[in-house]
Amino acid sequence: MREQSQYLEIIQDSIKKISYPPHPKGLFEPIQYILQLGGKRIRPVLTLMSASLYQEDITDSIAPALGLEIFHNFTLLHDDLMDKAEMRRGKPTVHIKWDNNTAILSGDAMQIMAYQFVGRTPASVLPQVMELFSQTALEICEGQQYDMEFEKRDDVTIVEYLEMIRLKTAVLLGCALKMGAIIAGAPDSDAKLLYDFGENIGLAFQLKDDLLDVYGNPDLFGKNIGGDIYNNKKTYLLITALNQANESESQILRDWISKTDFDPQSKLKAVTALYDETGAKASCEEKMEYYFKLAMEALDKVDLDENRKSALRLLAKELMYREN
Amino acid sequence: MREQSQYLEIIQDSIKKISYPPHPKGLFEPIQYILQLGGKRIRPVLTLMSASLYQEDITDSIAPALGLEIFHNFTLLHDDLMDKAEMRRGKPTVHIKWDNNTAILSGDAMQIMAYQFVGRTPASVLPQVMELFSQTALEICEGQQYDMEFEKRDDVTIVEYLEMIRLKTAVLLGCALKMGAIIAGAPDSDAKLLYDFGENIGLAFQLKDDLLDVYGNPDLFGKNIGGDIYNNKKTYLLITALNQANESESQILRDWISKTDFDPQSKLKAVTALYDETGAKASCEEKMEYYFKLAMEALDKVDLDENRKSALRLLAKELMYREN
Repeated sequence: MREQSQYLEIIQDSIKKISYPPHPKGLFEPIQYILQLGGKRIRPVLTLMSASLYQEDITDSIAPALGLEIFHNFTLLHDDLMDKAEMRRGKPTVHIKWDNNTAILSGDAMQIMAYQFVGRTPASVLPQVMELFSQTALEICEGQQYDMEFEKRDDVTIVEYLEMIRLKTAVLLGCALKMGAIIAGAPDSDAKLLYDFGENIGLAFQLKDDLLDVYGNPDLFGKNIGGDIYNNKKTYLLITALNQANESESQILRDWISKTDFDPQSKLKAVTALYDETGAKASCEEKMEYYFKLAMEALDKVDLDENRKSALRLLAKELMYREN
Repeated sequence: MREQSQYLEIIQDSIKKISYPPHPKGLFEPIQYILQLGGKRIRPVLTLMSASLYQEDITDSIAPALGLEIFHNFTLLHDDLMDKAEMRRGKPTVHIKWDNNTAILSGDAMQIMAYQFVGRTPASVLPQVMELFSQTALEICEGQQYDMEFEKRDDVTIVEYLEMIRLKTAVLLGCALKMGAIIAGAPDSDAKLLYDFGENIGLAFQLKDDLLDVYGNPDLFGKNIGGDIYNNKKTYLLITALNQANESESQILRDWISKTDFDPQSKLKAVTALYDETGAKASCEEKMEYYFKLAMEALDKVDLDENRKSALRLLAKELMYREN
């Protein structure tokens, strides 16, 4: 079994080698741009790691793994457009660097390219892989729809929030692992357990993201700290704080939420203090640990020697205790 | 072999029976809306007709045929958004009835649904069908990109225009026919000839569309006559008129194009007269007949009894001599 960094290298190399049709440039340049902005490449790495549990030669999984990374970047491209986000990984987003129509159409083309790469799965498992991928892709759209609807609602519950991040983020990690397992000929029961492992890691990963956005180290975190707080984004922290606040805490929190003109640092400081005092931070950390534990339990049940599973266990820990 | 109308009925029934996830409504209602706006359903009908050339039972082709219709409607949804079109088939477009983000995300979900339906192709031919479909889908994006780029250019040539409509419109008709043929086990040579038949019919079909937009009977044509002329849309007619005009005709045509404030009926009348006088109309009709002839020649070569091919021949003629 290779090291995680070697899988990453395979993916980075393969992304560089993607050949784009030469014309029209206006369609394919934005795709190349967003795919080369970087990122952790977690999804395709998970696919390769999962496949390597069952097969020495993971060549068959590389194209489908790339398909998942292309699909993930397509969702970022269209989500940034819908959210009017101007920056992504320190660079202008596609609809800013080009324009809205370019973002729409290049995104559409990326979705097709994602299917082209997933479609290079060996024929014997193609129907199963296609069904898994389409199901997952549709769930991700559902997650984004809920995310947008939640922006306009004041009564989003924790259960609804968790279902939203499950759809928007977690299922693709589950899919990545299951896809590698299917392609490499894993037993169905293992493929399902690896899906559960990925889905729970995905939930923990997103809760970690919510925490980092508030409590991250500004020197290490890729984005500015406090973005969610400035935008009143309904994260696990905000929903829980509103639920658990006493009357006076609730009043202060609602005042900050309703202010349109505020000093960012003061708001960040005040809301962070409320996340601490109401126990929202502790609750979010607890929930994150809970999903991490569920993930580990799923991995425990995968019918392989413990030493084969250690790389996945390590990656999961790194994702949980990351600083960016 | 069934009549064309029976294939249409199968498709209409199947569209009605598509089951959508119950939630989130905001994602799936717009999809249901656009799929039920109607339309000729030419693409899925072509798939079924093509399959029926080689198989009595065309059940295997129904889901993939629906996938093509869903994909076609997805392109209409996103194209209408990019073109800021407010009406489609006499009803408000999705971004008008809902909003831009809904149009983006529901469109994305439709593209996935299209792949889900195409993915229900029998496993034995799934890799081939997936490759054909993805290749075609990407070409359609390329066609839309060229269409948008041409709006900003003044030097679009007839060759470029024909390549644009080939990509944007014709390849999907070719794909529809070839897909049915592949699924029904046609010889490769026939599948290719049926693609050529569809592609050439598609080119003739689009030139007919350009003609109808100017010369159509207002009582029969679904849209308002003259839309292309009011918007200076670079159609075969306009490009040819500019190429073939003498100095004074060219001056009049360019004057009309540059006017931002004009009486629509006067512009329609004047530009139509120029299309007649410069021979642009005759040239467009000639080109349309040329592609129709190429289509018929491809169909001639399909290795089947003439009586089996008569339904396709009839449909092609109806598309060419249609009034809407």
